[in-house]
Amino acid sequence: MFKKILIANRGEIALRIIRTCKEMGIKTVAVYSTADKESLHVRFADEAVCIGPPPSAQSYLNIPNIIAAAEITNADAIHPGYGFLSENAEFSRICAENGIKFIGASPEMINQMGDKASAKDTMKKAGVPTIPGSEGLLKNVEEGLKIAKKIKYPIILKATAGGGGRGMRIVNNESEFEKAWNDARTESKAAFGNDGIYLEKFVVEPRHIEIQLIGDQHGQVAHLSERDCSIQRRHQKLVEETPSPFITDDLRERMGQAAIAGASAINYEGVGTIEFLVDKNRDFYFMEMNTRIQVEHPITEEVIDYDLIKEQIKVAAGLKITGKNYYPKMHAIECRINAEDPKNNFRPSPGKITTLHMPGGHGVRIDSHVYSGYTIPPNYDSMIAKLIVSAQTREEALVKMKRALSEFVIEGIKTTVPFHLKLMDDPGFKEGNFTTKYLEDFDFSAIKD
Amino acid sequence: MFKKILIANRGEIALRIIRTCKEMGIKTVAVYSTADKESLHVRFADEAVCIGPPPSAQSYLNIPNIIAAAEITNADAIHPGYGFLSENAEFSRICAENGIKFIGASPEMINQMGDKASAKDTMKKAGVPTIPGSEGLLKNVEEGLKIAKKIKYPIILKATAGGGGRGMRIVNNESEFEKAWNDARTESKAAFGNDGIYLEKFVVEPRHIEIQLIGDQHGQVAHLSERDCSIQRRHQKLVEETPSPFITDDLRERMGQAAIAGASAINYEGVGTIEFLVDKNRDFYFMEMNTRIQVEHPITEEVIDYDLIKEQIKVAAGLKITGKNYYPKMHAIECRINAEDPKNNFRPSPGKITTLHMPGGHGVRIDSHVYSGYTIPPNYDSMIAKLIVSAQTREEALVKMKRALSEFVIEGIKTTVPFHLKLMDDPGFKEGNFTTKYLEDFDFSAIKD
Repeated sequence: MFKKILIANRGEIALRIIRTCKEMGIKTVAVYSTADKESLHVRFADEAVCIGPPPSAQSYLNIPNIIAAAEITNADAIHPGYGFLSENAEFSRICAENGIKFIGASPEMINQMGDKASAKDTMKKAGVPTIPGSEGLLKNVEEGLKIAKKIKYPIILKATAGGGGRGMRIVNNESEFEKAWNDARTESKAAFGNDGIYLEKFVVEPRHIEIQLIGDQHGQVAHLSERDCSIQRRHQKLVEETPSPFITDDLRERMGQAAIAGASAINYEGVGTIEFLVDKNRDFYFMEMNTRIQVEHPITEEVIDYDLIKEQIKVAAGLKITGKNYYPKMHAIECRINAEDPKNNFRPSPGKITTLHMPGGHGVRIDSHVYSGYTIPPNYDSMIAKLIVSAQTREEALVKMKRALSEFVIEGIKTTVPFHLKLMDDPGFKEGNFTTKYLEDFDFSAIKD
Repeated sequence: MFKKILIANRGEIALRIIRTCKEMGIKTVAVYSTADKESLHVRFADEAVCIGPPPSAQSYLNIPNIIAAAEITNADAIHPGYGFLSENAEFSRICAENGIKFIGASPEMINQMGDKASAKDTMKKAGVPTIPGSEGLLKNVEEGLKIAKKIKYPIILKATAGGGGRGMRIVNNESEFEKAWNDARTESKAAFGNDGIYLEKFVVEPRHIEIQLIGDQHGQVAHLSERDCSIQRRHQKLVEETPSPFITDDLRERMGQAAIAGASAINYEGVGTIEFLVDKNRDFYFMEMNTRIQVEHPITEEVIDYDLIKEQIKVAAGLKITGKNYYPKMHAIECRINAEDPKNNFRPSPGKITTLHMPGGHGVRIDSHVYSGYTIPPNYDSMIAKLIVSAQTREEALVKMKRALSEFVIEGIKTTVPFHLKLMDDPGFKEGNFTTKYLEDFDFSAIKD
């Protein structure tokens, strides 16, 4: 087993990883930017190394500084968390070259899954259902028009290097095609330095349902059931739950087996997630694979009594998994508490938390790196806490979440707590009747202060 | 089901009850003393009524004021929590006379179990193992000497109205008897206004292991397995866990069945606990029955996925239980975080909490009524939080507790966190090898600041 792990991340996920390392008896090294020197991940790690100032390019994305920190502290592994360098093939390769175990996917797996067109191609070959569309990147408008005609509108144009909704355009008919094509390319080029675009059939009434996977170095892959992440705003997840209120036991198993087939095709090692779109007929299509731990992993942990970070570290160290799949025994929901103003277009609201009281009690878990008096820096993503509840049934989990949210006191900044409180009372959400577009019709102005 | 419940208590248990009521859709009324007006239970209840100043005799024990508060607010039930009026037969009777459901035992049950001699007699008749000793109260020294000779020393003298160790004396041989008898009577008279004393065989190397029970109004009683509460200082529990590292599946079932027999004998309704002493030969003896919810109930909730307060309210409303017993599926530990200085004889340390950060993450539950900036009043018991962890095994639960304790930041007051941190590293405790006297040899001076 590893003796010391450097955590190349910040915020709640850095703290999350430190917690499990402590429980495993593994020493930890935090790295931090000058903006984060008061962060709890710095305080709770055994050692901490400053790796530069914000923005992230100079610190949390600064590969030479992070490798130097690992070498100075004699860390034998690096956990990248999510975001930042977690799906960076070059970083994975450099870690290996320096004799440091990267707790994540190999450069080859990251490359294969990071490029959307190649990921889709790989999955298709493995028998995973994919959305009909172009074979790889589109050469030009004419090719796109031809394919769209064949698979029928609506279609969607997507940036091959994209994420978070950038470089995406829905096209409802032929006349809209050319402008959408140009817009998507321009946006993709600006955001990712890459204007490769591919085309897909646009899935109507889609749900975002993903399968958690774990694979070991000995060729075994197991699934840990699904998470329903359909509650999104501009492709940013806000609420996740498991089990999904939409899927059946049979569909869960078919999706789980498809995900295992896909991951096995690339000899996947580590924890990973295959995201699917599920349409109103309960047909499912591969969307993408994330070769890392995900923000919403705790809901899976709560319903199967499993520490995903612990298992991730164990498989990275070469241990075998049992190979058995896991199924939800409870119902869990996560609300992302962001320092954003939900009545003002979710505008970020950094600043000092003057008063903080977090909920607690039966069935309530909080993963957070903030405290009363903490100043949220403006440089990073705005998530300040994950509020997770678990209960025997979805109905009980919903009332528990509402109760917990009602206890959340955060003064000094705006947060998404009032949005979540309104959502928990929303009839469509309570019925489990929602798609990824559900929030497009949500009345954010009616959120209470 | 009740429409509105008044909670005749304060602190974490008041908040605990409010939480479940919210989840059940039941309105809540908090009552509070003038010393508690900034408490969270006041803030989170739907209504709040001030019932007088400290000390408790003028507020939390002030029956007329509490009944008046219930009538003004139209509450149809009162939950007494633990302590205060929770085992007060007169209060139970007055509630009933006023048409308010007392969520607890009937006056008859409280009286039967509140008097130790009559409780023991009742249990003995029901076939529950009891400690050999006097039949009821001792008349005089001579009778005591005669019984002690028969059952053999060491014996213990106990105040019939006692609790918390007051009015108790261990007698190792005949020559010590008379002084111990006089001391116990004087102490009991002063503390409880009652100098009734009884005698028992003194149990060597005892463990305090209790069985959680629930009974409904239809004659069914079930057990919810045990809690090991042997880690005590001066008869005050500091750490509780379930399952007990000392008992076997067979012993659990025998203790559970004995507890069911005892509770059934008095047609017990509600949640209750029978406390046993278990000696080194794993023989067990009835100690007392608590006819109320206990401080340490959350560890049971964590290992059986059960909300005890919810079930307590349901049986009080007349609902039936299934009658099935529950067995631990996990391991849970609770540490009582008290505002006390463990290096200074656990002297209470009330005052303002200037900085507070509570642990969180996987397997961690906190029940607490305090927050950063809260001033702990000097008038009440010093418990400020219950830190509960759950994991698959005892070993994992121990490291999780250590991890969670290491994250607990409380500034401005002294707390028992450093004591618990030392205990988690203590070889005897880690091995599960401890009795109720374990802390008598504990080196409190070696606790780190």
